[in-house]
Amino acid sequence: MLNKFPDDSLALHTDLYQVNMVETYWDDHIHNRKAVFELYFRKIPFGNGYAVFAGLEKIIEYLNQFHFSESDIAYLRDELGYEEDFLDYLKTLKFTGKLRAMKEGELVFGNEPILRVEAPLAEAQLIETALLNIVNYQTLIATKASRIKQVIGDDTAIEFGTRRAQEMDAAIWGARAAFVGGFEATSNVRAGKLFGIPVSGTHAHAMVQAYRDEYTAFHKYAARHKDCTFLVDTYETLKSGVPTAIKVAKELGDKINFKAIRLDSGDLAYLSKEARKMLDEAGFKKTKIIASNDLDEYTIINLKSQGARIDGWGIGTKLITAYDQAALGAVYKLVSIEDENGEMVDTIKISGNPEKVTTPGLKKIYRIINRINHKSEGDYIAMEDEKPEQEERLKMFHPIHTYIKKFVTNFEAKELHHDIFVDGKLVYNLPDIREIQQFVKNNLNLLWEEYKRSLNPEEYPVDLSQKCWDNKMENIAKVKEKVAISIRK
Amino acid sequence: MLNKFPDDSLALHTDLYQVNMVETYWDDHIHNRKAVFELYFRKIPFGNGYAVFAGLEKIIEYLNQFHFSESDIAYLRDELGYEEDFLDYLKTLKFTGKLRAMKEGELVFGNEPILRVEAPLAEAQLIETALLNIVNYQTLIATKASRIKQVIGDDTAIEFGTRRAQEMDAAIWGARAAFVGGFEATSNVRAGKLFGIPVSGTHAHAMVQAYRDEYTAFHKYAARHKDCTFLVDTYETLKSGVPTAIKVAKELGDKINFKAIRLDSGDLAYLSKEARKMLDEAGFKKTKIIASNDLDEYTIINLKSQGARIDGWGIGTKLITAYDQAALGAVYKLVSIEDENGEMVDTIKISGNPEKVTTPGLKKIYRIINRINHKSEGDYIAMEDEKPEQEERLKMFHPIHTYIKKFVTNFEAKELHHDIFVDGKLVYNLPDIREIQQFVKNNLNLLWEEYKRSLNPEEYPVDLSQKCWDNKMENIAKVKEKVAISIRK
Repeated sequence: MLNKFPDDSLALHTDLYQVNMVETYWDDHIHNRKAVFELYFRKIPFGNGYAVFAGLEKIIEYLNQFHFSESDIAYLRDELGYEEDFLDYLKTLKFTGKLRAMKEGELVFGNEPILRVEAPLAEAQLIETALLNIVNYQTLIATKASRIKQVIGDDTAIEFGTRRAQEMDAAIWGARAAFVGGFEATSNVRAGKLFGIPVSGTHAHAMVQAYRDEYTAFHKYAARHKDCTFLVDTYETLKSGVPTAIKVAKELGDKINFKAIRLDSGDLAYLSKEARKMLDEAGFKKTKIIASNDLDEYTIINLKSQGARIDGWGIGTKLITAYDQAALGAVYKLVSIEDENGEMVDTIKISGNPEKVTTPGLKKIYRIINRINHKSEGDYIAMEDEKPEQEERLKMFHPIHTYIKKFVTNFEAKELHHDIFVDGKLVYNLPDIREIQQFVKNNLNLLWEEYKRSLNPEEYPVDLSQKCWDNKMENIAKVKEKVAISIRK
Repeated sequence: MLNKFPDDSLALHTDLYQVNMVETYWDDHIHNRKAVFELYFRKIPFGNGYAVFAGLEKIIEYLNQFHFSESDIAYLRDELGYEEDFLDYLKTLKFTGKLRAMKEGELVFGNEPILRVEAPLAEAQLIETALLNIVNYQTLIATKASRIKQVIGDDTAIEFGTRRAQEMDAAIWGARAAFVGGFEATSNVRAGKLFGIPVSGTHAHAMVQAYRDEYTAFHKYAARHKDCTFLVDTYETLKSGVPTAIKVAKELGDKINFKAIRLDSGDLAYLSKEARKMLDEAGFKKTKIIASNDLDEYTIINLKSQGARIDGWGIGTKLITAYDQAALGAVYKLVSIEDENGEMVDTIKISGNPEKVTTPGLKKIYRIINRINHKSEGDYIAMEDEKPEQEERLKMFHPIHTYIKKFVTNFEAKELHHDIFVDGKLVYNLPDIREIQQFVKNNLNLLWEEYKRSLNPEEYPVDLSQKCWDNKMENIAKVKEKVAISIRK
């Protein structure tokens, strides 16, 4: 049980192979060689045209507290049999490296590094699993939320998914990611407390059942709560729920603010239109209609196209679990490492699948923004020492179909990575959650509409500089040659 | 940030509406009326023939520590505006009720209560969201793991999913649920420590990249680790990885135990067969082949039918996220409540969808086991005061298609619920995790094969007693009459 280990740290929240690799590096005295890893995904989830990066707050917390606790060390010794010399080394470990990352809420696309870790090899290796665990989930949900919010438009979007979330961390960090992606509120009170997100909710069917009729239940609720949203589908929405809500609201008059009714089952298009009529005829024109029940961007588009009169949308399961694609496949790859002479050398991972070949070397990521229309022309990955911002005329070409190219002039090259940790010290102030949400909105304004539609969006360009592309090709050739030699041996 | 609130409790890990309902009950002085809620799902996930209950350990921990901390109360006061009188009440709240539940690892089917909470209305209401959050995820994963393990058979099954899990709790509790469902090990070291699950793992591509060739990397790994599993697909599996692994193993001879090679990409059927030949020819007949790469029960069946020579299976994304059905839809419904005279009265929730109508009243759940063949005849839900174990000849009929019926004799009626908390005190000793895993295996032995196949299993009977069925019908009639009267008013 968790409470058996009050000093439980997250250092062991890693795959066992990381520990074994670190032991190998340490045994071979290369554990402090400087290594550079990049974290990125290959494909944007949900067929969306962009993803929204989330996870930095948790990463900061994780790296800040990174250490092996006494019970961690005891477990490694007593249960897994690691030896004392190695454990003595682990006891001293902290994160002493550098982290450069996109800001939370930055738009991110396939095959561009969201973050880059430059640290002693052992440290960079040990943190891989946790970093992926964090970024994969939170980015997935922020992206899904943004995608759903694009369809919802100016209506209110509320995250309702805790009961269906994949355990408790998913519930709270998913609520936070949903807010980053543009949702207005969550039902999870703890997420509200921890992250300063607005919370929302009134009553459930159970309250109507507890009072055994809607009339009593609504009155009792209103006796303590001035702002009233009544759930109207416990028995029969149009015959009982809506008329009872109206009756109670009329009886109470100014004593309450009859904010909304909520529909949670049945044909939401039909019910919302009929309920709207009933509310309007009773003089409650400002009373809103909130709907929920397994909604996602597809059902919402359909309901809207059917003229549903819904003002607020409660989204649960399909958002909090990213139901139609429950995992983002971000990876963490070594791109450069210090050699025996203290020189940094590029590394590459080859694969039978060309999309899986990594891009070696220390790199910077730029968003190329057209100064005339203030739209983004694409992202540009260059080697660390390049200065695309100083170029007059930037050549941008497709990294696989290289004949697809364009030249851009009069542009701003905005660097997407920022120093977060330097020499193990946090040097970045995480913005308020509302600023992060606003940052997403501003970023979306830079994108042409063609990248933002939910179905078949255009592919946003993520290009390599000529130097970066040439370096990749050289590295591929070098590895192929080396493997050929080793086979001949 | 989390570390802003060192006293963060899980009492706020609930939907806001629960707090508002509790405030209403408290304001109306009915918060201490005894209420009975049942937790159940309607449909077994993945089209499987059974589900495996997991989540009890976490529920026990949650209920044991249930309280509002100082920062919780401060948040409710300062940010959400709850008044001091109500907060004074919340400050004193603990779980004082009764929990009856299935044991972890019990097989569970649609529409039968996994657990039952009998507690003061306010307490029972507040804990709903967390209970669902826990049971929905852990039961989903234990079920998926059992389903995959059925296909894997006696080969080794290892859970590898942390990096793709939906945040950190999912990684560790998912690893535990996978073990409950029959997996042999997890890669997550923290899950190993917290739950006593075996952990497994050797090295990743990054280590080969760090040494820039496989020969050096394998040697360096072996220098510290006697048990060696070499990952052979960093460059070219058959041309480089496998021959290099064999070469290193031959050079080191008895100094290492060449346990396995691991394939992580490419055509696993072809590669495993070729690698098997190469290992056998080199004399490494006992060296196993472990495979991974987006595996699930469908790919495993296919690989096996193609004669793949795989001895161990590493399962990540598809298991830890339950990728093909990322949420279980368990609900928590009020079935009985104390009225103003101190009498318990049954409650029901009606729905336009007949499957969603609840079954009212205090009930017990039995598994009816045939004493001759030791197979289960189905589950039987009876009213609390019934004694099916004393019947000679039990009538079992389908709760919807009531003409489908059978009579069972010479049976054992095994009650599935056990006291976990009584008067808020834990009265149950949670078994060791290995006992829980064994319990699942024993339970599966009670099931006919027809319920266990992964495609189109037979539907396992979950029947109501005649008395339970009659009571449900009476309650439906009563509510319909009441609604009709309230509409006429």
